[in-house]
Amino acid sequence: MTRISFHQKLEHLRERLLQMAGIAEQTLSLALDAHCRGQLSALDAIRLNEAIINRSEREIDQMATDLLAMEQPMAVDLRFVLAAIKINSDLERVGDQAMTIALLAKELADSQPCDFPVDIPYMAELSMTMVRKALQALADRDVALATSVLKMDDAVDEMNRRAKAVLLDCIARDSTAAKSAVNLLFISRSLERIADHATNMAEDVIFWLNGADVRHGHALHIN
Amino acid sequence: MTRISFHQKLEHLRERLLQMAGIAEQTLSLALDAHCRGQLSALDAIRLNEAIINRSEREIDQMATDLLAMEQPMAVDLRFVLAAIKINSDLERVGDQAMTIALLAKELADSQPCDFPVDIPYMAELSMTMVRKALQALADRDVALATSVLKMDDAVDEMNRRAKAVLLDCIARDSTAAKSAVNLLFISRSLERIADHATNMAEDVIFWLNGADVRHGHALHIN
Repeated sequence: MTRISFHQKLEHLRERLLQMAGIAEQTLSLALDAHCRGQLSALDAIRLNEAIINRSEREIDQMATDLLAMEQPMAVDLRFVLAAIKINSDLERVGDQAMTIALLAKELADSQPCDFPVDIPYMAELSMTMVRKALQALADRDVALATSVLKMDDAVDEMNRRAKAVLLDCIARDSTAAKSAVNLLFISRSLERIADHATNMAEDVIFWLNGADVRHGHALHIN
Repeated sequence: MTRISFHQKLEHLRERLLQMAGIAEQTLSLALDAHCRGQLSALDAIRLNEAIINRSEREIDQMATDLLAMEQPMAVDLRFVLAAIKINSDLERVGDQAMTIALLAKELADSQPCDFPVDIPYMAELSMTMVRKALQALADRDVALATSVLKMDDAVDEMNRRAKAVLLDCIARDSTAAKSAVNLLFISRSLERIADHATNMAEDVIFWLNGADVRHGHALHIN
């Protein structure tokens, strides 16, 4: 009886986490549409989602803490609860970055239109794909999919570095474009941070399923 | 006997966390000196510290996981282990931001000298004070000190917003200063992130000692 209840609690935690993941993913998608397709009407929905995400973060942390206190999970179950706590925190930060991008998109839309030679939509697509894959790996218990996320991070880092160089060059040639270029630079930086959060979540999925800490390129086997 | 060993393990975790906190604080201090006092020779020490911090993060996570698996701590002890896991992650990110600031300081030093009307040293001092107080609160089990950190966050956010407006204005007036201004903008943004990490750590100390989740202005009592 206790075991059934324990597994029900674990499953309930997993469902709540995936539900929060869905909201975070949707919020990010709305923010990227706000920037890449000018759909600024989504700003209210993004704000609402962010409040839901913040509340969910507290609730999931509470569920995880209660589970640890009352059920004392072991091995893979313990690792799942710890991974859930960390993924929860990363999802909340993805929500924060989505809000940041939406506000920058609004500032950009309010400034004079500029055409910069940086492919932010592609970078956005790549970061979004990393988040989606990390969360799919969480839903499907898929180590291979999680591992594929880790390999994508360098590409986004490099794009962010290149965006900085290109945008600085644009400002040097036309200082009236400075505000827009800087806002775009901050969007690029947010996308790079989102890719980092996707990487963290993928690492947590691998830790949960394999018991391996693969952060900073390490593969320390713990169980 | 088991209880003694359990408390020894808890104390050992606390000592390792405070040791890591000391290194993160020192790394941040070196990075701020690199920027505010031009002490770029510290770059190698910062790089070395960052590697130590990354290794410490893995070790502390491992210790916390083992403690949860083998000792099944309850109430305030469980909350301490959970707080330690989160503070550990924030300390690693403070280390990352310190590295970012140091690299930006180097880029700034390599560009033409500019004098911008933004008080980054004061903002740096405030962020550093927040980190110091959060870690002191951790060391001294001091809820009042942790609470004082939360109240400082808005001031740093506001300074970051003001720095953006001022620096954009500087670029508009002199586009040759663009690169330096943007690098300074990124330092300001890093300081704002560091203040956020200090806030997170202070919230974790309060959660540990009071069992209250005070994130996003909430005060949900859990025990």
